[in-house]
Amino acid sequence: MATDRPAEPVSRDTLVTSEDPLCFESALPALNQWITPVQTFYTRNHFSETPDLNPHSYRLSVGGAVEAPLSLSLHDLRARPVKEVVATLECAGNSRSYVPPPAEGIRFSHGAVGNARWSGLSLRDILTRGMIAPGATEVLFEGADVGEEEEEGKTLEVRFGRSLPLETALLPDTILAYEMNGSPLTPDHGYPVRLIVPGWYAMASVKWLTRITVLNESFEGFFQRRRYIFINEGETGQQSPPPVTRLRVKSIINRPRHGEVVHPGIYAIQGKAWSGDGEMVVAVGVSTNGGRDWLAAELVGPSARGAWRQWELPWEVSGAGHHILMARATDSAGNTQPVGIEWNFRGYANNGIHTIAVEVPAH
Amino acid sequence: MATDRPAEPVSRDTLVTSEDPLCFESALPALNQWITPVQTFYTRNHFSETPDLNPHSYRLSVGGAVEAPLSLSLHDLRARPVKEVVATLECAGNSRSYVPPPAEGIRFSHGAVGNARWSGLSLRDILTRGMIAPGATEVLFEGADVGEEEEEGKTLEVRFGRSLPLETALLPDTILAYEMNGSPLTPDHGYPVRLIVPGWYAMASVKWLTRITVLNESFEGFFQRRRYIFINEGETGQQSPPPVTRLRVKSIINRPRHGEVVHPGIYAIQGKAWSGDGEMVVAVGVSTNGGRDWLAAELVGPSARGAWRQWELPWEVSGAGHHILMARATDSAGNTQPVGIEWNFRGYANNGIHTIAVEVPAH
Repeated sequence: MATDRPAEPVSRDTLVTSEDPLCFESALPALNQWITPVQTFYTRNHFSETPDLNPHSYRLSVGGAVEAPLSLSLHDLRARPVKEVVATLECAGNSRSYVPPPAEGIRFSHGAVGNARWSGLSLRDILTRGMIAPGATEVLFEGADVGEEEEEGKTLEVRFGRSLPLETALLPDTILAYEMNGSPLTPDHGYPVRLIVPGWYAMASVKWLTRITVLNESFEGFFQRRRYIFINEGETGQQSPPPVTRLRVKSIINRPRHGEVVHPGIYAIQGKAWSGDGEMVVAVGVSTNGGRDWLAAELVGPSARGAWRQWELPWEVSGAGHHILMARATDSAGNTQPVGIEWNFRGYANNGIHTIAVEVPAH
Repeated sequence: MATDRPAEPVSRDTLVTSEDPLCFESALPALNQWITPVQTFYTRNHFSETPDLNPHSYRLSVGGAVEAPLSLSLHDLRARPVKEVVATLECAGNSRSYVPPPAEGIRFSHGAVGNARWSGLSLRDILTRGMIAPGATEVLFEGADVGEEEEEGKTLEVRFGRSLPLETALLPDTILAYEMNGSPLTPDHGYPVRLIVPGWYAMASVKWLTRITVLNESFEGFFQRRRYIFINEGETGQQSPPPVTRLRVKSIINRPRHGEVVHPGIYAIQGKAWSGDGEMVVAVGVSTNGGRDWLAAELVGPSARGAWRQWELPWEVSGAGHHILMARATDSAGNTQPVGIEWNFRGYANNGIHTIAVEVPAH
């Protein structure tokens, strides 16, 4: 079975989507557990260089519209009460390869998503309401990663930075994470500290976090105003295009894989489904005949706000031939996945229905 | 702008789609003339080795259900009255990359199509009705190209061979071509002799033709019964699946290219449209706003049965932003291109509407 984009396996579990910046995604069959192992978890870096921060000299500065700025060591952060969240991170460019016509950006298939146990401290534990100046509206998070980007024909040196609305920044589950699945963050996942914003596309979960700035105005940096925005057909992006924020409801099929030969008998179709903004997945429909009929999958395993849900459907495999399998999730707000895919200029937030073909042999 | 499949440019005009077997396709902007130059014309070989036939020892055998078999030299063929046809060849796998979910086979974008002037002789000039035995139904055409294919888990040595219904084989425009655009065929296009079947997907136009056999029964070879057949969702291909035969109505946009920056003013959108089975393209609709409105393009340049038609639409480019352009052809039988794409197991004959995105800058 030919693959549908230029990706090379580096292990059986991951596919390199881009070498510079380093981006790899998970092979869907490898996403077969609730918690995604670190070595399988997708990586989306923005620049050539992965920051190499010294944990002893590391400082996180907290400034801007605050009473008194802070400069915190890793030891200071680890001394605070531990807050743990299980959160699904999905790249805003996940599934971009399937947006017609082709959209600009790293050509991810469906594997730029994963679910991990993140440990750290609530941001609001160090950035309390009391220390924030009146009139503050946003909090800017900047990483140590810096590189060049093109803007209006000019090459600029840009630091990765993203802001959040103040109320999102101060949610208890918005954490400064220093551990992933019980171990210190790896360099590609933001060592020593990253932000985790459950329910948002993962550009919000800034890696190699070194600076937090409370703002009285909108942040206008490159990755806020030129990237991670929806510029639709007929639009220029000049008039405040809507930003990419919370995860759209979505599901993936982990088993079988696209192109698999499935033998007659009972076959457990398995997958994951998630939604953002505090919504829970309430239903997953599965079709084994190209969308003509839909069966309700069973939601199984652990459930946590901000984390994906596992689902399963026993399929009575009988008829030989090629079969098209689809999975479609619905969340507690009634959002469901669309049949068509709306183009936007970088193919962000594609939550079109995951569709694969499998073959049942004649004997 | 990232490309949407693994293709490397070997020149500005072509993209290598596969190295073994050698397959390359045309960059759409290079298909800007009615007649496609030989060096731009796409190539789809089936095996590693390109046959290297000696023109002096070359023989074309004609046998099977005929009164008396023939063995013809290249000189014999060239001695017959010259028959010239302008015919569009399109690979049955053209546009396969855009079939969801991904289908098996060489991952062609939209450029496995071209239009050339083919010179040779009508097959019926050497294979006359009079010499064909009563009860004959098909004519088998075999090339000199041989290689290995998998069938039911076994590796077989297979010669490329395809049959045509007797009546198609005896149409005056079904020719044995030895020249392409006025020069001898190149090795990749079937030197010294290939079949040309106007209006059919190009698997019918057998290259390196060395043997013609009149049959009283259906040909059951690998490329007739295992390939170039429609096996749809839910089907096995066991019960005589419909074969890929005549070209479906289709159009491509050559100008602008996907991702082009187009400046305000009048811009001539240009493309090609074709249909098989003797039908003519009668209309091409173009949308510059993602399919909401459609304008009639003008059909321009030469017209010939079996050849594509050029079309053009002056676009008054005004609004800055991203614009989605689409082209949709309709033929004289009222066939038009579908909005959705029907999956089949090798993604054959995808005539979905060609859709590209361009950008008009703010100033």
